[in-house]
Amino acid sequence: MAWPFALMIDPAAPDDIRTDFSATFTPFDPGAAALPVGELSAQRGDGVFESLGVVDGHAQEVDAHLRRLSHSAALCDLASPNLAQWRTAVAVAEAHSPAGESVIKLILSRGVDHTPGPTAWLTAASTPDFHDARESGIRVVTLDRGIDSAAADRAPWLLLGAKTLSYAINMAAIREAKRRGADDAIFVSTDGNVLEAPTASVVLRVADRFITPPPSGAILHGTTQLSVFAYLQSRGHDVAYETVPASLLPTVDAAWLLSSLRLAAPIISVDDRLVPHDAPLTAELNAYLLSRRD
Amino acid sequence: MAWPFALMIDPAAPDDIRTDFSATFTPFDPGAAALPVGELSAQRGDGVFESLGVVDGHAQEVDAHLRRLSHSAALCDLASPNLAQWRTAVAVAEAHSPAGESVIKLILSRGVDHTPGPTAWLTAASTPDFHDARESGIRVVTLDRGIDSAAADRAPWLLLGAKTLSYAINMAAIREAKRRGADDAIFVSTDGNVLEAPTASVVLRVADRFITPPPSGAILHGTTQLSVFAYLQSRGHDVAYETVPASLLPTVDAAWLLSSLRLAAPIISVDDRLVPHDAPLTAELNAYLLSRRD
Repeated sequence: MAWPFALMIDPAAPDDIRTDFSATFTPFDPGAAALPVGELSAQRGDGVFESLGVVDGHAQEVDAHLRRLSHSAALCDLASPNLAQWRTAVAVAEAHSPAGESVIKLILSRGVDHTPGPTAWLTAASTPDFHDARESGIRVVTLDRGIDSAAADRAPWLLLGAKTLSYAINMAAIREAKRRGADDAIFVSTDGNVLEAPTASVVLRVADRFITPPPSGAILHGTTQLSVFAYLQSRGHDVAYETVPASLLPTVDAAWLLSSLRLAAPIISVDDRLVPHDAPLTAELNAYLLSRRD
Repeated sequence: MAWPFALMIDPAAPDDIRTDFSATFTPFDPGAAALPVGELSAQRGDGVFESLGVVDGHAQEVDAHLRRLSHSAALCDLASPNLAQWRTAVAVAEAHSPAGESVIKLILSRGVDHTPGPTAWLTAASTPDFHDARESGIRVVTLDRGIDSAAADRAPWLLLGAKTLSYAINMAAIREAKRRGADDAIFVSTDGNVLEAPTASVVLRVADRFITPPPSGAILHGTTQLSVFAYLQSRGHDVAYETVPASLLPTVDAAWLLSSLRLAAPIISVDDRLVPHDAPLTAELNAYLLSRRD
């Protein structure tokens, strides 16, 4: 994957109301050394991030991603990001984005050890070809997430609702899924409820309703799931946030993992049990997700 | 804190039996940009690390730390580190270490996104003054770790026994402890057992026995705890690995958090209940821990 563009961002104070942030941006070569080893992102995965899908130079759902960046930063006791500054940075990256699908990644780290203030940067890059996952579907396995559904409320220091840079578990879960011959995983709580995938939201269709677990703090609130729910509602479908027992998974009429880059990936099996695939609806959802959204 | 020395390490294959690894080491300025933003340590906290205490240029318990580095790497599906190479790198850093106490940190990351092979580096730096924590003691609070004692066995993808770079939760727990007016935290499982501190092992004295939770996979096996147990045994004390109910904490005769840099920090209160402090024994332990160990 090429990394065509990167921007170091000197984080503005949340109350900085200037309209021209260009002096706070420094483009740099994304393949070159840019971070000192004292960077707390590299030392401790101590920071938060967002990955925005970009289609033909248009970043999708920027506001929803920026809201979640702020939410993650608050959970991690990081200074509030100046959203006007980040929005401008995204616009600069959009102007450098290639035709077709790509990604803009926003990173806000706690900074460099023993120096004050956070570090921030953005990268823009092309994305892999997700054609096969979107059309042929993905096989998933369920994996124990070790926590119960109430852990996030009880123990906010577990940062369960924050999109932090501490993603080693998410990556290990995907490796475990591949070891089992699957493509991806769905995390299940110790009390038997569906949570989320390591890098995606889970949406199920049961009869004529579309359901997803409530973003109660134990899981991230998926920006693509939000977008899909809005679309489905606009088409007259019922959508709901509901606790989803994992035992429901093998009985659903259809299921998807939704994420900003792969978009709607239809689930064709869960733990080797086949799940029906509604190919026309999946195609409709992906056509919508690839259209210009805001 | 100064970062007096850093070494980029070109990771040798585990079966590389050369005796001179100097061609694989590149010293670099620890304050300068050294890592590209594609570094998976910075992107996802995807890697493992060790922090070795150094006293007057002698790194303590190198073998125990390297064994744990290998164990962490295996849990994370990283290629086995070549321990002879790492041992040589530590020796190079020892030669650059200042008088008094310092730290050598070893980092093994999954590497740079979309390029093959891991990245490895080492830093050597002075440490803060831990005099006060060692002599006056620390106040701790217990914090729910969200997982039960058996989670690690059931769900190895949670990487509970690996010292990964995904340390955001550990840092959040220490911030929560400080918010509560304490200095540090002790993690407790949902089934009520003492696990570990965010960056230290927990050792308790109950009557004339010294106990610590078994390193069953849910917690790291502390190198300093191992060292202290060996010392205590050599002095005729009983030591044991035992499940420790959190309800035991307020009743102990003494308690310590043990770690490679702060060494033996006596616990003087748990959740605002006072814990007796055996100052002479703490001083004896720290004198031992500051002596040359291997």
